Amino acid sequence: MAENQKKNAADNAVFVGTKPVMNYVLAAITQFNQGGKEVVLKARGKAISRAVDVAEILRNRFIQGLVPKSISIGTEELQTESGEKINVSTIEIVLGKS
Amino acid sequence: MAENQKKNAADNAVFVGTKPVMNYVLAAITQFNQGGKEVVLKARGKAISRAVDVAEILRNRFIQGLVPKSISIGTEELQTESGEKINVSTIEIVLGKS
Repeated sequence: MAENQKKNAADNAVFVGTKPVMNYVLAAITQFNQGGKEVVLKARGKAISRAVDVAEILRNRFIQGLVPKSISIGTEELQTESGEKINVSTIEIVLGKS
Repeated sequence: MAENQKKNAADNAVFVGTKPVMNYVLAAITQFNQGGKEVVLKARGKAISRAVDVAEILRNRFIQGLVPKSISIGTEELQTESGEKINVSTIEIVLGKS
C-alpha cells in the first residue's frame, strides 16, 4: 500500500521520448482525467522539442485553462556503451490548471 | 542614432536554427562581452532542443553565474508553400547573470 502511494506520487510524470506526439498527449490527458492536478513532462536531448509540442497541443486543443506552472532546464551526464561520458540537456515542464 | 539604439535593444536575441550549436554559443558570448546583461535565445520546431543545449553549454562551460531568468513556450502559425497552415512550437530562454 505504501509502495502503491509512492508510485502514485511519481505517476504524474510523463516521459517524452521518440514515440508519436499524440501518445504523450493522451498519457497526460489520462492523468488529468484521473484527478491529477499537475502533470510533469520530462524529456532529454532531441525529445525536448517534442515535449514542448505536447505541452502546446494540450493547452491549445484539449484542456482549457492549462498553463505551464514552471519550466526548468538542466544537464545530465550519460555514459555511452564505449564508456565515454556525454552531456545531454533536459527539460521539465510542469502543467497545471490556472 | 535613434535607429542604432533601437537596433541594439533588439540585438540581444539569438535565433537558434540548424547551424552547429557552437555558432550560437559564440554569438551569445559575443553579446555578453559587448556589455549585454541579458541574452534571449529564441527557437522554434526541432531547433528548440538546440536552444536548450546552447543555454546549458553557456552556463556550464563558459559564463559563471549565468542562470535562465525566464523560460517561456508558445505556438506560432506558419503558412506552407501550398497555403496550408501549420502550428509550430516556440521557446524563449532569457539568460542573465545572477
